[in-house]
Amino acid sequence: MRADIDRLMTDRDLRALIVTGGEHPNTLRAYLSNGVDIHGGMVVKVRGSAPVLIVSSMEVEEAARSGLRVLTYDDLDWSQILKRTEGDSRKGFVLFWERILKEFAIPPGRIGLYGVGDLHVWIERVQELNAAYPGHPIVGESGLTLFDEAYVTKDPDELQTIREVAAKTSAVLQATWDFIGSHRADGTTVVKPDGSPLTIGEVKRFVRRELLDRELEDTHMIFAQGRDAGFPHSRGEDSQALQLGQPIVFDLFPRQLGGGYHHDCTRTWCIGHAPDAVRAVYDQVMAAFQIALETYDEPGQPTHTMQEAVQTYFESHGHPTQRSTPGTTVGYVHSLGHGVGLNIHERPSIHHLMKKDTFQQGNFITIEPGLYYPEQGLGVRIEDSFIIDDAGQLVSITNFPKDLVLPLKG
Amino acid sequence: MRADIDRLMTDRDLRALIVTGGEHPNTLRAYLSNGVDIHGGMVVKVRGSAPVLIVSSMEVEEAARSGLRVLTYDDLDWSQILKRTEGDSRKGFVLFWERILKEFAIPPGRIGLYGVGDLHVWIERVQELNAAYPGHPIVGESGLTLFDEAYVTKDPDELQTIREVAAKTSAVLQATWDFIGSHRADGTTVVKPDGSPLTIGEVKRFVRRELLDRELEDTHMIFAQGRDAGFPHSRGEDSQALQLGQPIVFDLFPRQLGGGYHHDCTRTWCIGHAPDAVRAVYDQVMAAFQIALETYDEPGQPTHTMQEAVQTYFESHGHPTQRSTPGTTVGYVHSLGHGVGLNIHERPSIHHLMKKDTFQQGNFITIEPGLYYPEQGLGVRIEDSFIIDDAGQLVSITNFPKDLVLPLKG
Repeated sequence: MRADIDRLMTDRDLRALIVTGGEHPNTLRAYLSNGVDIHGGMVVKVRGSAPVLIVSSMEVEEAARSGLRVLTYDDLDWSQILKRTEGDSRKGFVLFWERILKEFAIPPGRIGLYGVGDLHVWIERVQELNAAYPGHPIVGESGLTLFDEAYVTKDPDELQTIREVAAKTSAVLQATWDFIGSHRADGTTVVKPDGSPLTIGEVKRFVRRELLDRELEDTHMIFAQGRDAGFPHSRGEDSQALQLGQPIVFDLFPRQLGGGYHHDCTRTWCIGHAPDAVRAVYDQVMAAFQIALETYDEPGQPTHTMQEAVQTYFESHGHPTQRSTPGTTVGYVHSLGHGVGLNIHERPSIHHLMKKDTFQQGNFITIEPGLYYPEQGLGVRIEDSFIIDDAGQLVSITNFPKDLVLPLKG
Repeated sequence: MRADIDRLMTDRDLRALIVTGGEHPNTLRAYLSNGVDIHGGMVVKVRGSAPVLIVSSMEVEEAARSGLRVLTYDDLDWSQILKRTEGDSRKGFVLFWERILKEFAIPPGRIGLYGVGDLHVWIERVQELNAAYPGHPIVGESGLTLFDEAYVTKDPDELQTIREVAAKTSAVLQATWDFIGSHRADGTTVVKPDGSPLTIGEVKRFVRRELLDRELEDTHMIFAQGRDAGFPHSRGEDSQALQLGQPIVFDLFPRQLGGGYHHDCTRTWCIGHAPDAVRAVYDQVMAAFQIALETYDEPGQPTHTMQEAVQTYFESHGHPTQRSTPGTTVGYVHSLGHGVGLNIHERPSIHHLMKKDTFQQGNFITIEPGLYYPEQGLGVRIEDSFIIDDAGQLVSITNFPKDLVLPLKG
């Protein structure tokens, strides 16, 4: 939670943290800025003090929405510095850093640098800044980072937003089900009233409009049919017509329009009818889903045991898994789930090799078993998102049925 | 251009370049991968050889669309390594890097690391890798980078795509003009057939749908009215009703759906009629636009002179500029233009302090003078995007009129 950040800084012996990264969407910056993603700006947080934003003069109005103190680059003499270095922003930045250290009276000690941005720029810059200001060493962090630790539990305001996004996403699932179901078949092909095929591209367009109408945006949904459904991250072919009796993996993970909290859910549908082979695999995935839920006990429990329970079940039914056959591209090929939030993938991981992650109150996580056999034209995944509530209960917030067969009514 | 990359690597004494950055949208990675943005993957390019993609086994199918050689992380033993380090990805990555050096037989020498990603992760990682493999120092780059230099000129395929995106974006401008114009006024407020106000949020929703229908996506358009128009990067207030006689700055910079080439254009509209004060400022911005075009002569010319010509014009009419009054938030407060491409802001810059940038054949750039007086409820910006064609001519590809007054016909 945001409230943990000072403690997490102390754990890491950081005097200050600076979040930067130019114009790229930057969830870390938005997180510290109370949801406002300041394009091109920086956030400076001295331990024990509130974050302060540094933005271009053009972004002042947007930045003020954060409720935080806002400075402009020119309040810190950026234009004058750039003039002095004759437009050399590389040299200029070293001088600018000195102004930051002074403005915020950052005491000597480690400064954590975070953010999403141009790696090449900051690899060079950090080397230069560390040479110029050895009393204020800039440090990075991989593994379980300060932000990973903060993100892992959501505060009540975040959970409220997350529930709203979940309800909207579930409504889009329903609208998509109804939309497809309103069509009719010609032979094995789903067709529109004029007799032309209904394509995956048209379904995706429908979904994007339904999302927009609810102030959500698509972030590369998967709508993959038949063989494509057998590749977990194939997005599906826009030109392909919907066919009866083929499994369709529909993985929808939109976020609030303009960047914000995500939802993540997957359904597998067969239009008209389900062949026995699909039904059999579907039933096993549903059983794995139940096993996962039953494995959950209470906060503090390691996550990897849930993945292992699912792997044991799938292996006992003859499916390769990443545990039995590392690198397999058929069978059960991925982790069981992950945290979600401003980022689509956060901690905890539910993975057999990630032994240290645990379930915690305030988690917002997915559970998503699947089986994949592309050469058999087959893939099935079922996914809900869950929160772990104040009582420590694992509660699904994806409110949409898990029926396999989507009947046509057109 | 892509064809320049080996030469640009030689200029920088790079034996190889590696583009990485996790799941973040990563235009550098997409550029090297022929437009395919491989989520979570890496691109390895040894100087003189074609790029090779390294992706998770789940992304193989998507990655293959690039036409490039594709390896999986497990082809390079990632799962085995992670097992050996007991899930510690930080330790694991150092071992994984050794596998990359071996697999691609990278000779000793500098490796350029590029990409968009988690800065904190790579700041730490690069320190660890440089300590572990001193014969293969990893270097970053700020200032005018290898990719900046490559992006600055577009090849014929890119220009073809850019023209298509331009035509679609111009069509959306027309549709938006027609949509607003189909309404009527009640007093000074634009209203819908049922008499309720037409809001900025509703206009933006209309625009997003029109974009989607053309396989484009919004990237935070600006539709800012009155005082908000006076802050160049205010996005506009969704809840605000459209009003007669107030300047509206409409800056639309969509890209191809799912990431791709952008277009960038701005119009300033007054619905119903334009007050004299707005008209006067508008005429000056239009004059500045013409001056910019007339300043252009031929490829090789420095860009800063175009900005200076516009600044001289505005200053002679009593407006502060960033040259006369560094840090000003009123008057002419920004640069005159910038390159566009997969990224919304590329080189060259058209800025009075950026003395080294020049116009070149194959540039795709904006020209966008503006004047801003928020306390007077006033902001005006006019922007077209241009290419510099084979004949060295500066050619606008934004095909939409620059009328100020948008009449209501409802």
